[in-house]
Amino acid sequence: MKNCTIIKVGGKVVENEQSLKKLLNDFNAIKGLKLLVHGGGNIATQMANQLGLKVEMVNGRRITNAEMLDIVIMVYGGKVNKNVVAGLQALNCNAIGLTGADLNILKAVKRPVKEIDYGFVGDIVEVNGKALKILLENNYIPVIAPLTHDKNGQILNTNADDITHAIAVALSKYFNVKLVFCFDKKGVLLDMEDNNSVIQKLSKDEFKKLAENKIINEGMVPKLENGFASLEAGVKKVIISSVEGISIENSGTELIDNG
Amino acid sequence: MKNCTIIKVGGKVVENEQSLKKLLNDFNAIKGLKLLVHGGGNIATQMANQLGLKVEMVNGRRITNAEMLDIVIMVYGGKVNKNVVAGLQALNCNAIGLTGADLNILKAVKRPVKEIDYGFVGDIVEVNGKALKILLENNYIPVIAPLTHDKNGQILNTNADDITHAIAVALSKYFNVKLVFCFDKKGVLLDMEDNNSVIQKLSKDEFKKLAENKIINEGMVPKLENGFASLEAGVKKVIISSVEGISIENSGTELIDNG
Repeated sequence: MKNCTIIKVGGKVVENEQSLKKLLNDFNAIKGLKLLVHGGGNIATQMANQLGLKVEMVNGRRITNAEMLDIVIMVYGGKVNKNVVAGLQALNCNAIGLTGADLNILKAVKRPVKEIDYGFVGDIVEVNGKALKILLENNYIPVIAPLTHDKNGQILNTNADDITHAIAVALSKYFNVKLVFCFDKKGVLLDMEDNNSVIQKLSKDEFKKLAENKIINEGMVPKLENGFASLEAGVKKVIISSVEGISIENSGTELIDNG
Repeated sequence: MKNCTIIKVGGKVVENEQSLKKLLNDFNAIKGLKLLVHGGGNIATQMANQLGLKVEMVNGRRITNAEMLDIVIMVYGGKVNKNVVAGLQALNCNAIGLTGADLNILKAVKRPVKEIDYGFVGDIVEVNGKALKILLENNYIPVIAPLTHDKNGQILNTNADDITHAIAVALSKYFNVKLVFCFDKKGVLLDMEDNNSVIQKLSKDEFKKLAENKIINEGMVPKLENGFASLEAGVKKVIISSVEGISIENSGTELIDNG
Protein backbone atom coordinates (compact mmCIF):
# COMPACT_ATOMS: atom_id res chain seq x y z
CA MET A 1 0.00 0.00 0.00
CA LYS A 2 1.10 3.55 -0.75
CA ASN A 3 1.55 6.10 2.03
CA CYS A 4 -0.94 8.94 2.40
CA THR A 5 -0.49 11.88 4.77
CA ILE A 6 -3.56 13.67 6.11
CA ILE A 7 -3.09 17.07 7.72
CA LYS A 8 -5.73 18.86 9.75
CA VAL A 9 -5.29 22.55 10.51
CA GLY A 10 -7.56 24.94 12.38
CA GLY A 11 -9.22 27.96 10.90
CA LYS A 12 -6.81 30.41 12.54
CA VAL A 13 -3.85 29.03 10.58
CA VAL A 14 -5.51 29.52 7.18
CA GLU A 15 -6.93 32.96 8.03
CA ASN A 16 -3.61 34.60 8.77
CA GLU A 17 -1.58 35.45 5.66
CA GLN A 18 1.78 34.69 7.28
CA SER A 19 0.83 31.35 8.83
CA LEU A 20 -1.08 30.34 5.69
CA LYS A 21 2.00 30.93 3.55
CA LYS A 22 4.13 28.75 5.84
CA LEU A 23 1.45 26.06 5.92
CA LEU A 24 1.20 25.95 2.13
CA ASN A 25 4.97 25.64 1.74
CA ASP A 26 5.26 22.93 4.40
CA PHE A 27 2.26 21.02 3.07
CA ASN A 28 3.58 21.24 -0.48
CA ALA A 29 6.90 19.74 0.68
CA ILE A 30 5.24 16.55 1.97
CA LYS A 31 6.20 13.66 -0.31
CA GLY A 32 3.65 11.22 -1.68
CA LEU A 33 -0.13 11.29 -1.54
CA LYS A 34 -1.64 13.87 0.76
CA LEU A 35 -4.85 15.56 1.79
CA LEU A 36 -5.61 18.70 3.79
CA VAL A 37 -8.62 19.34 6.03
CA HIS A 38 -9.07 22.92 7.23
CA GLY A 39 -11.26 24.35 9.95
CA GLY A 40 -13.40 27.43 9.80
CA GLY A 41 -12.07 30.13 12.06
CA ASN A 42 -13.14 33.62 12.89
CA ILE A 43 -13.93 35.10 9.47
CA ALA A 44 -17.41 33.57 9.61
CA THR A 45 -18.03 35.35 12.94
CA GLN A 46 -16.68 38.63 11.56
CA MET A 47 -18.90 38.31 8.51
CA ALA A 48 -21.93 37.57 10.71
CA ASN A 49 -21.16 40.66 12.78
CA GLN A 50 -20.82 42.79 9.63
CA LEU A 51 -24.20 41.52 8.45
CA GLY A 52 -25.72 42.22 11.85
CA LEU A 53 -26.38 38.58 12.72
CA LYS A 54 -26.17 37.36 16.28
CA VAL A 55 -23.55 34.65 16.75
CA GLU A 56 -24.64 32.05 19.27
CA MET A 57 -22.11 29.75 20.88
CA VAL A 58 -22.91 26.94 23.35
CA ASN A 59 -19.98 25.17 25.05
CA GLY A 60 -17.63 26.64 22.44
CA ARG A 61 -19.76 25.29 19.59
CA ARG A 62 -21.42 27.48 17.02
CA ILE A 63 -25.20 27.34 16.72
CA THR A 64 -25.82 27.24 12.98
CA ASN A 65 -29.17 28.75 12.00
CA ALA A 66 -30.10 29.23 8.34
CA GLU A 67 -28.40 32.65 8.04
CA MET A 68 -25.26 31.42 9.79
CA LEU A 69 -25.19 28.34 7.55
CA ASP A 70 -25.16 30.57 4.46
CA ILE A 71 -22.19 32.46 5.88
CA VAL A 72 -20.37 29.30 6.83
CA ILE A 73 -20.85 27.85 3.31
CA MET A 74 -19.58 31.09 1.75
CA VAL A 75 -16.61 31.52 4.07
CA TYR A 76 -15.45 27.92 4.62
CA GLY A 77 -16.47 26.48 1.23
CA GLY A 78 -15.76 29.65 -0.78
CA LYS A 79 -13.26 32.16 0.55
CA VAL A 80 -11.06 29.99 2.80
CA ASN A 81 -11.13 26.82 0.70
CA LYS A 82 -10.50 28.50 -2.67
CA ASN A 83 -7.80 30.72 -1.21
CA VAL A 84 -5.92 27.61 0.00
CA VAL A 85 -6.43 25.88 -3.36
CA ALA A 86 -5.17 28.87 -5.38
CA GLY A 87 -2.21 29.21 -3.01
CA LEU A 88 -1.26 25.55 -3.47
CA GLN A 89 -1.71 25.75 -7.24
CA ALA A 90 0.79 28.65 -7.25
CA LEU A 91 3.30 26.13 -5.79
CA ASN A 92 2.43 23.57 -8.51
CA CYS A 93 0.57 21.46 -5.98
CA ASN A 94 -2.46 20.19 -7.91
CA ALA A 95 -5.10 20.95 -5.28
CA ILE A 96 -8.85 20.44 -5.58
CA GLY A 97 -11.19 22.05 -3.06
CA LEU A 98 -14.08 19.96 -1.81
CA THR A 99 -16.96 20.05 0.61
CA GLY A 100 -18.69 16.87 1.71
CA ALA A 101 -21.38 17.47 -0.92
CA ASP A 102 -18.88 17.25 -3.79
CA LEU A 103 -18.78 13.65 -5.07
CA ASN A 104 -20.89 12.82 -2.02
CA ILE A 105 -17.67 12.56 -0.05
CA LEU A 106 -19.23 13.11 3.37
CA LYS A 107 -22.82 12.20 4.03
CA ALA A 108 -24.17 13.35 7.39
CA VAL A 109 -27.38 13.64 9.38
CA LYS A 110 -28.55 16.86 10.94
CA ARG A 111 -27.73 16.52 14.61
CA PRO A 112 -30.87 15.47 16.53
CA VAL A 113 -32.13 18.10 18.96
CA LYS A 114 -31.65 17.04 22.60
CA GLU A 115 -30.92 19.67 25.25
CA ILE A 116 -29.41 21.95 22.63
CA ASP A 117 -30.54 22.65 19.06
CA TYR A 118 -27.28 23.10 17.18
CA GLY A 119 -29.16 23.93 13.99
CA PHE A 120 -27.66 22.93 10.66
CA VAL A 121 -24.83 20.86 12.11
CA GLY A 122 -23.98 17.48 10.65
CA ASP A 123 -22.87 14.21 12.22
CA ILE A 124 -21.08 12.10 9.62
CA VAL A 125 -22.65 8.76 8.67
CA GLU A 126 -20.78 7.80 5.49
CA VAL A 127 -17.50 8.60 3.74
CA ASN A 128 -17.00 8.04 0.00
CA GLY A 129 -13.42 6.82 0.39
CA LYS A 130 -13.43 5.43 -3.14
CA ALA A 131 -13.91 8.87 -4.71
CA LEU A 132 -11.06 10.29 -2.59
CA LYS A 133 -8.90 7.29 -3.59
CA ILE A 134 -9.53 8.00 -7.29
CA LEU A 135 -8.57 11.66 -6.84
CA LEU A 136 -5.44 10.79 -4.84
CA GLU A 137 -4.34 8.15 -7.37
CA ASN A 138 -4.52 10.82 -10.10
CA ASN A 139 -2.11 12.84 -7.94
CA TYR A 140 -4.84 15.34 -7.13
CA ILE A 141 -4.57 16.89 -3.67
CA PRO A 142 -7.95 17.18 -1.90
CA VAL A 143 -8.43 20.27 0.27
CA ILE A 144 -11.51 19.73 2.39
CA ALA A 145 -13.73 22.38 3.98
CA PRO A 146 -15.66 21.58 7.19
CA LEU A 147 -19.00 21.06 5.47
CA THR A 148 -21.04 17.94 4.79
CA HIS A 149 -24.47 17.27 3.23
CA ASP A 150 -27.44 15.06 4.01
CA LYS A 151 -27.87 13.74 0.42
CA ASN A 152 -31.27 15.49 0.37
CA GLY A 153 -29.86 18.82 -0.75
CA GLN A 154 -29.02 20.22 2.68
CA ILE A 155 -25.48 21.33 3.42
CA LEU A 156 -24.41 21.00 7.06
CA ASN A 157 -21.73 22.67 9.17
CA THR A 158 -19.43 19.94 10.51
CA ASN A 159 -16.52 19.72 12.93
CA ALA A 160 -13.20 19.52 11.05
CA ASP A 161 -11.66 17.06 13.53
CA ASP A 162 -14.60 14.69 13.02
CA ILE A 163 -14.21 15.01 9.24
CA THR A 164 -10.49 14.28 9.48
CA HIS A 165 -11.05 11.19 11.62
CA ALA A 166 -13.75 9.85 9.27
CA ILE A 167 -11.65 10.40 6.14
CA ALA A 168 -8.50 8.94 7.70
CA VAL A 169 -10.35 5.77 8.66
CA ALA A 170 -11.99 5.43 5.23
CA LEU A 171 -8.65 5.88 3.43
CA SER A 172 -6.95 3.30 5.66
CA LYS A 173 -8.54 0.62 3.49
CA TYR A 174 -6.42 1.77 0.55
CA PHE A 175 -3.35 3.46 2.01
CA ASN A 176 -0.95 3.54 4.96
CA VAL A 177 -2.39 6.68 6.51
CA LYS A 178 -0.38 9.07 8.66
CA LEU A 179 -2.58 11.64 10.35
CA VAL A 180 -1.30 14.92 11.81
CA PHE A 181 -3.75 16.99 13.87
CA CYS A 182 -2.27 20.49 14.09
CA PHE A 183 -3.34 22.87 16.84
CA ASP A 184 -1.88 25.83 18.72
CA LYS A 185 0.38 23.89 21.15
CA LYS A 186 3.52 21.90 20.33
CA GLY A 187 1.75 18.69 21.31
CA VAL A 188 -0.01 17.18 24.31
CA LEU A 189 1.52 18.95 27.32
CA LEU A 190 2.20 17.56 30.79
CA ASP A 191 2.10 21.12 32.04
CA MET A 192 -0.24 23.50 30.21
CA GLU A 193 1.97 26.44 31.16
CA ASP A 194 5.12 24.88 29.72
CA ASN A 195 5.20 24.52 25.93
CA ASN A 196 8.31 22.36 26.31
CA SER A 197 6.56 19.68 28.37
CA VAL A 198 5.39 17.79 25.26
CA ILE A 199 4.59 14.12 25.85
CA GLN A 200 6.43 12.36 23.03
CA LYS A 201 4.47 9.11 23.01
CA LEU A 202 1.06 8.66 24.59
CA SER A 203 -0.94 5.42 24.95
CA LYS A 204 -4.68 5.34 25.51
CA ASP A 205 -4.26 4.03 29.08
CA GLU A 206 -1.88 6.85 29.91
CA PHE A 207 -4.26 9.34 28.30
CA LYS A 208 -7.15 8.09 30.43
CA LYS A 209 -5.12 8.49 33.62
CA LEU A 210 -3.97 11.99 32.68
CA ALA A 211 -7.52 13.00 31.78
CA GLU A 212 -8.85 11.63 35.09
CA ASN A 213 -6.22 13.62 36.97
CA LYS A 214 -7.14 16.75 34.91
CA ILE A 215 -3.56 16.99 33.65
CA ILE A 216 -4.91 16.85 30.11
CA ASN A 217 -7.43 19.64 29.79
CA GLU A 218 -11.00 19.43 28.59
CA GLY A 219 -10.48 20.86 25.11
CA MET A 220 -7.89 18.21 24.31
CA VAL A 221 -10.06 15.26 25.34
CA PRO A 222 -12.26 15.03 22.19
CA LYS A 223 -9.21 15.63 19.99
CA LEU A 224 -7.35 12.74 21.63
CA GLU A 225 -10.42 10.50 21.60
CA ASN A 226 -10.66 11.14 17.85
CA GLY A 227 -6.97 10.35 17.48
CA PHE A 228 -7.12 7.05 19.40
CA ALA A 229 -10.28 6.06 17.55
CA SER A 230 -8.41 6.64 14.26
CA LEU A 231 -5.53 4.48 15.44
CA GLU A 232 -7.86 1.68 16.52
CA ALA A 233 -9.68 1.83 13.17
CA GLY A 234 -6.57 1.21 11.09
CA VAL A 235 -4.78 4.56 10.74
CA LYS A 236 -1.06 3.73 10.93
CA LYS A 237 0.26 6.82 12.71
CA VAL A 238 -1.43 9.67 14.58
CA ILE A 239 0.42 12.82 15.63
CA ILE A 240 -0.91 15.76 17.65
CA SER A 241 1.29 18.82 17.17
CA SER A 242 1.59 22.44 16.14
CA VAL A 243 1.91 23.14 12.41
CA GLU A 244 5.64 22.45 12.95
CA GLY A 245 4.64 18.79 12.97
CA ILE A 246 4.08 19.01 9.21
CA SER A 247 7.69 19.76 8.39
CA ILE A 248 9.64 18.53 11.44
CA GLU A 249 9.89 14.76 11.90
CA ASN A 250 9.26 13.49 15.46
CA SER A 251 7.78 16.72 16.78
CA GLY A 252 4.53 16.72 18.69
CA THR A 253 2.89 13.79 20.48
CA GLU A 254 2.55 10.42 18.81
CA LEU A 255 -0.41 8.34 19.92
CA ILE A 256 0.57 4.71 20.42
CA ASP A 257 -1.07 1.37 21.21
CA ASN A 258 -1.12 0.30 24.84
CA GLY A 259 2.27 -1.36 25.49
CA MET B 1 -15.84 9.50 -29.27
CA LYS B 2 -18.41 9.72 -26.50
CA ASN B 3 -20.97 12.51 -26.40
CA CYS B 4 -20.69 15.24 -23.79
CA THR B 5 -23.33 17.89 -23.15
CA ILE B 6 -22.29 21.24 -21.73
CA ILE B 7 -24.99 23.49 -20.29
CA LYS B 8 -24.50 27.13 -19.40
CA VAL B 9 -27.09 28.88 -17.24
CA GLY B 10 -27.15 32.42 -15.93
CA GLY B 11 -27.06 33.40 -12.30
CA LYS B 12 -30.77 34.23 -12.16
CA VAL B 13 -31.76 30.63 -12.87
CA VAL B 14 -29.73 29.20 -10.00
CA GLU B 15 -30.73 31.92 -7.53
CA ASN B 16 -34.46 31.29 -7.72
CA GLU B 17 -35.59 28.20 -5.80
CA GLN B 18 -38.30 27.29 -8.34
CA SER B 19 -36.19 27.67 -11.48
CA LEU B 20 -33.22 26.00 -9.78
CA LYS B 21 -35.34 22.95 -8.98
CA LYS B 22 -36.49 22.63 -12.59
CA LEU B 23 -32.93 23.13 -13.85
CA LEU B 24 -31.56 20.40 -11.58
CA ASN B 25 -34.23 17.92 -12.70
CA ASP B 26 -33.75 18.71 -16.39
CA PHE B 27 -29.97 18.63 -16.14
CA ASN B 28 -30.09 15.36 -14.23
CA ALA B 29 -32.22 13.82 -17.02
CA ILE B 30 -29.53 14.46 -19.68
CA LYS B 31 -28.05 11.13 -20.74
CA GLY B 32 -24.31 10.57 -21.01
CA LEU B 33 -21.44 12.76 -19.93
CA LYS B 34 -22.34 16.30 -18.94
CA LEU B 35 -21.03 19.46 -17.34
CA LEU B 36 -22.75 22.57 -15.99
CA VAL B 37 -21.40 26.14 -15.97
CA HIS B 38 -23.35 28.64 -13.89
CA GLY B 39 -23.22 32.41 -13.81
CA GLY B 40 -23.16 34.66 -10.80
CA GLY B 41 -26.35 36.65 -10.54
CA ASN B 42 -27.66 39.19 -8.13
CA ILE B 43 -26.84 37.65 -4.76
CA ALA B 44 -23.32 39.08 -4.96
CA THR B 45 -24.78 42.57 -5.44
CA GLN B 46 -27.24 42.07 -2.59
CA MET B 47 -24.42 40.88 -0.34
CA ALA B 48 -22.28 43.89 -1.32
CA ASN B 49 -25.18 46.21 -0.48
CA GLN B 50 -25.69 44.51 2.88
CA LEU B 51 -22.00 44.98 3.64
CA GLY B 52 -22.16 48.61 2.58
CA LEU B 53 -19.91 48.20 -0.46
CA LYS B 54 -20.43 50.27 -3.57
CA VAL B 55 -21.18 48.16 -6.65
CA GLU B 56 -19.63 49.64 -9.78
CA MET B 57 -20.83 48.57 -13.21
CA VAL B 58 -19.40 49.77 -16.54
CA ASN B 59 -21.23 48.75 -19.73
CA GLY B 60 -23.10 46.10 -17.75
CA ARG B 61 -19.88 44.60 -16.44
CA ARG B 62 -19.01 44.45 -12.78
CA ILE B 63 -15.88 46.23 -11.59
CA THR B 64 -14.24 43.75 -9.23
CA ASN B 65 -12.16 45.43 -6.55
CA ALA B 66 -10.62 43.39 -3.71
CA GLU B 67 -13.72 43.56 -1.49
CA MET B 68 -16.03 42.67 -4.37
CA LEU B 69 -13.75 39.77 -5.35
CA ASP B 70 -14.08 38.33 -1.84
CA ILE B 71 -17.86 38.49 -2.14
CA VAL B 72 -17.84 36.97 -5.61
CA ILE B 73 -15.66 34.07 -4.43
CA MET B 74 -17.95 33.46 -1.46
CA VAL B 75 -21.20 33.72 -3.39
CA TYR B 76 -20.31 32.10 -6.74
CA GLY B 77 -17.73 29.61 -5.49
CA GLY B 78 -19.43 28.95 -2.14
CA LYS B 79 -23.15 29.53 -1.79
CA VAL B 80 -24.34 29.17 -5.40
CA ASN B 81 -21.96 26.41 -6.49
CA LYS B 82 -22.37 24.22 -3.40
CA ASN B 83 -26.13 24.67 -3.42
CA VAL B 84 -26.26 23.34 -7.00
CA VAL B 85 -23.93 20.46 -6.12
CA ALA B 86 -25.95 19.43 -3.06
CA GLY B 87 -29.17 19.68 -5.10
CA LEU B 88 -27.76 17.42 -7.83
CA GLN B 89 -26.42 14.94 -5.27
CA ALA B 90 -29.96 14.68 -3.85
CA LEU B 91 -30.97 13.43 -7.34
CA ASN B 92 -28.11 10.90 -7.36
CA CYS B 93 -26.23 13.00 -9.89
CA ASN B 94 -22.59 12.73 -8.79
CA ALA B 95 -21.71 16.42 -9.03
CA ILE B 96 -18.40 18.05 -8.14
CA GLY B 97 -18.18 21.82 -7.74
CA LEU B 98 -15.15 23.51 -9.21
CA THR B 99 -13.64 26.92 -9.75
CA GLY B 100 -10.88 27.48 -12.29
CA ALA B 101 -8.32 27.21 -9.47
CA ASP B 102 -9.32 23.64 -8.64
CA LEU B 103 -7.06 21.23 -10.58
CA ASN B 104 -5.85 24.35 -12.41
CA ILE B 105 -8.81 23.96 -14.74
CA LEU B 106 -8.88 27.56 -15.91
CA LYS B 107 -5.76 29.67 -15.94
CA ALA B 108 -6.32 33.34 -16.70
CA VAL B 109 -4.53 36.67 -16.74
CA LYS B 110 -5.84 39.73 -14.93
CA ARG B 111 -7.37 41.88 -17.64
CA PRO B 112 -4.90 44.62 -18.65
CA VAL B 113 -6.05 48.13 -17.78
CA LYS B 114 -6.92 50.14 -20.90
CA GLU B 115 -9.71 52.74 -20.74
CA ILE B 116 -11.37 50.85 -17.92
CA ASP B 117 -9.82 49.08 -14.93
CA TYR B 118 -12.08 46.07 -14.40
CA GLY B 119 -10.10 45.06 -11.32
CA PHE B 120 -9.78 41.37 -10.50
CA VAL B 121 -11.29 40.11 -13.74
CA GLY B 122 -9.68 37.25 -15.63
CA ASP B 123 -9.23 36.55 -19.33
CA ILE B 124 -8.73 32.82 -19.87
CA VAL B 125 -5.41 31.70 -21.32
CA GLU B 126 -5.40 27.94 -20.68
CA VAL B 127 -7.89 25.15 -19.99
CA ASN B 128 -6.88 21.89 -18.32
CA GLY B 129 -9.14 19.76 -20.50
CA LYS B 130 -7.35 16.60 -19.43
CA ALA B 131 -8.37 17.02 -15.78
CA LEU B 132 -12.00 17.58 -16.83
CA LYS B 133 -11.77 14.51 -19.08
CA ILE B 134 -10.57 12.36 -16.16
CA LEU B 135 -13.45 13.58 -13.99
CA LEU B 136 -16.02 13.02 -16.76
CA GLU B 137 -14.70 9.53 -17.52
CA ASN B 138 -15.21 8.63 -13.87
CA ASN B 139 -18.84 9.69 -14.34
CA TYR B 140 -18.31 12.74 -12.17
CA ILE B 141 -20.38 15.77 -13.17
CA PRO B 142 -18.40 19.02 -13.03
CA VAL B 143 -20.35 22.10 -11.88
CA ILE B 144 -18.27 25.15 -12.65
CA ALA B 145 -18.44 28.57 -10.98
CA PRO B 146 -17.44 31.71 -12.95
CA LEU B 147 -14.03 32.05 -11.32
CA THR B 148 -10.51 31.45 -12.64
CA HIS B 149 -7.02 31.91 -11.18
CA ASP B 150 -3.70 33.27 -12.43
CA LYS B 151 -1.59 30.32 -11.12
CA ASN B 152 0.13 32.82 -8.80
CA GLY B 153 -2.45 32.49 -6.05
CA GLN B 154 -4.87 35.13 -7.32
CA ILE B 155 -8.50 34.16 -7.98
CA LEU B 156 -10.22 36.17 -10.73
CA ASN B 157 -13.86 36.91 -11.54
CA THR B 158 -14.57 35.61 -15.05
CA ASN B 159 -17.45 35.74 -17.51
CA ALA B 160 -19.38 32.44 -17.50
CA ASP B 161 -19.98 32.50 -21.29
CA ASP B 162 -16.23 32.81 -21.88
CA ILE B 163 -15.60 29.92 -19.49
CA THR B 164 -18.19 27.78 -21.26
CA HIS B 165 -16.69 28.49 -24.67
CA ALA B 166 -13.15 27.71 -23.48
CA ILE B 167 -14.17 24.44 -21.81
CA ALA B 168 -16.31 23.31 -24.76
CA VAL B 169 -13.41 23.82 -27.16
CA ALA B 170 -10.93 22.04 -24.85
CA LEU B 171 -13.26 19.04 -24.42
CA SER B 172 -13.85 18.78 -28.19
CA LYS B 173 -10.49 17.01 -28.40
CA TYR B 174 -11.92 14.12 -26.41
CA PHE B 175 -15.69 14.16 -26.92
CA ASN B 176 -18.48 15.06 -29.35
CA VAL B 177 -19.53 18.21 -27.52
CA LYS B 178 -23.03 19.63 -27.60
CA LEU B 179 -23.21 23.08 -26.07
CA VAL B 180 -26.42 24.73 -24.86
CA PHE B 181 -26.24 28.40 -23.84
CA CYS B 182 -29.39 29.07 -21.81
CA PHE B 183 -30.66 32.62 -21.36
CA ASP B 184 -33.97 34.37 -20.73
CA LYS B 185 -35.39 34.18 -24.28
CA LYS B 186 -36.52 31.09 -26.17
CA GLY B 187 -33.68 31.55 -28.66
CA VAL B 188 -32.34 34.18 -31.04
CA LEU B 189 -35.40 36.24 -31.97
CA LEU B 190 -36.21 37.92 -35.29
CA ASP B 191 -38.44 40.27 -33.34
CA MET B 192 -37.35 41.09 -29.80
CA GLU B 193 -40.98 41.73 -28.81
CA ASP B 194 -42.18 38.33 -30.05
CA ASN B 195 -40.93 35.35 -28.07
CA ASN B 196 -42.29 33.07 -30.80
CA SER B 197 -40.06 34.54 -33.53
CA VAL B 198 -37.20 32.15 -32.74
CA ILE B 199 -34.75 31.63 -35.59
CA GLN B 200 -34.38 27.84 -35.76
CA LYS B 201 -31.08 27.64 -37.60
CA LEU B 202 -28.62 30.52 -37.89
CA SER B 203 -25.40 30.66 -39.91
CA LYS B 204 -22.58 33.08 -39.23
CA ASP B 205 -23.24 35.00 -42.45
CA GLU B 206 -26.93 35.40 -41.55
CA PHE B 207 -25.93 36.45 -38.04
CA LYS B 208 -23.61 39.15 -39.41
CA LYS B 209 -26.36 40.56 -41.61
CA LEU B 210 -28.90 40.55 -38.77
CA ALA B 211 -26.39 42.22 -36.44
CA GLU B 212 -25.59 44.89 -39.05
CA ASN B 213 -29.29 45.59 -39.46
CA LYS B 214 -29.65 45.78 -35.64
CA ILE B 215 -32.23 42.97 -35.73
CA ILE B 216 -30.03 41.03 -33.33
CA ASN B 217 -29.51 43.25 -30.31
CA GLU B 218 -26.25 44.23 -28.72
CA GLY B 219 -26.39 41.91 -25.70
CA MET B 220 -26.75 38.87 -27.98
CA VAL B 221 -23.74 39.70 -30.14
CA PRO B 222 -20.94 38.49 -27.80
CA LYS B 223 -23.03 35.41 -26.92
CA LEU B 224 -23.39 34.50 -30.60
CA GLU B 225 -19.75 35.30 -31.35
CA ASN B 226 -18.81 32.89 -28.55
CA GLY B 227 -21.16 30.31 -30.02
CA PHE B 228 -19.81 30.54 -33.56
CA ALA B 229 -16.23 30.52 -32.27
CA SER B 230 -17.06 27.27 -30.41
CA LEU B 231 -18.48 25.74 -33.59
CA GLU B 232 -15.43 26.75 -35.62
CA ALA B 233 -13.11 25.32 -32.97
CA GLY B 234 -14.61 21.83 -33.11
CA VAL B 235 -17.73 21.86 -30.93
CA LYS B 236 -20.26 19.64 -32.74
CA LYS B 237 -23.50 21.43 -31.89
CA VAL B 238 -24.27 24.85 -30.40
CA ILE B 239 -27.76 25.83 -29.23
CA ILE B 240 -28.91 29.19 -27.86
CA SER B 241 -32.16 28.78 -25.94
CA SER B 242 -34.05 29.24 -22.71
CA VAL B 243 -33.62 26.57 -20.03
CA GLU B 244 -36.29 24.66 -21.96
CA GLY B 245 -33.54 23.83 -24.43
CA ILE B 246 -32.11 21.43 -21.84
CA SER B 247 -35.11 19.11 -21.85
CA ILE B 248 -36.84 19.83 -25.18
CA GLU B 249 -35.12 18.60 -28.33
CA ASN B 250 -34.98 21.11 -31.22
CA SER B 251 -35.99 24.11 -29.16
CA GLY B 252 -34.01 27.34 -29.37
CA THR B 253 -31.65 28.44 -32.13
CA GLU B 254 -29.04 26.08 -33.54
CA LEU B 255 -25.91 27.74 -34.87
CA ILE B 256 -24.85 26.17 -38.18
CA ASP B 257 -21.98 26.38 -40.65
CA ASN B 258 -22.42 28.70 -43.61
CA GLY B 259 -24.32 26.65 -46.20
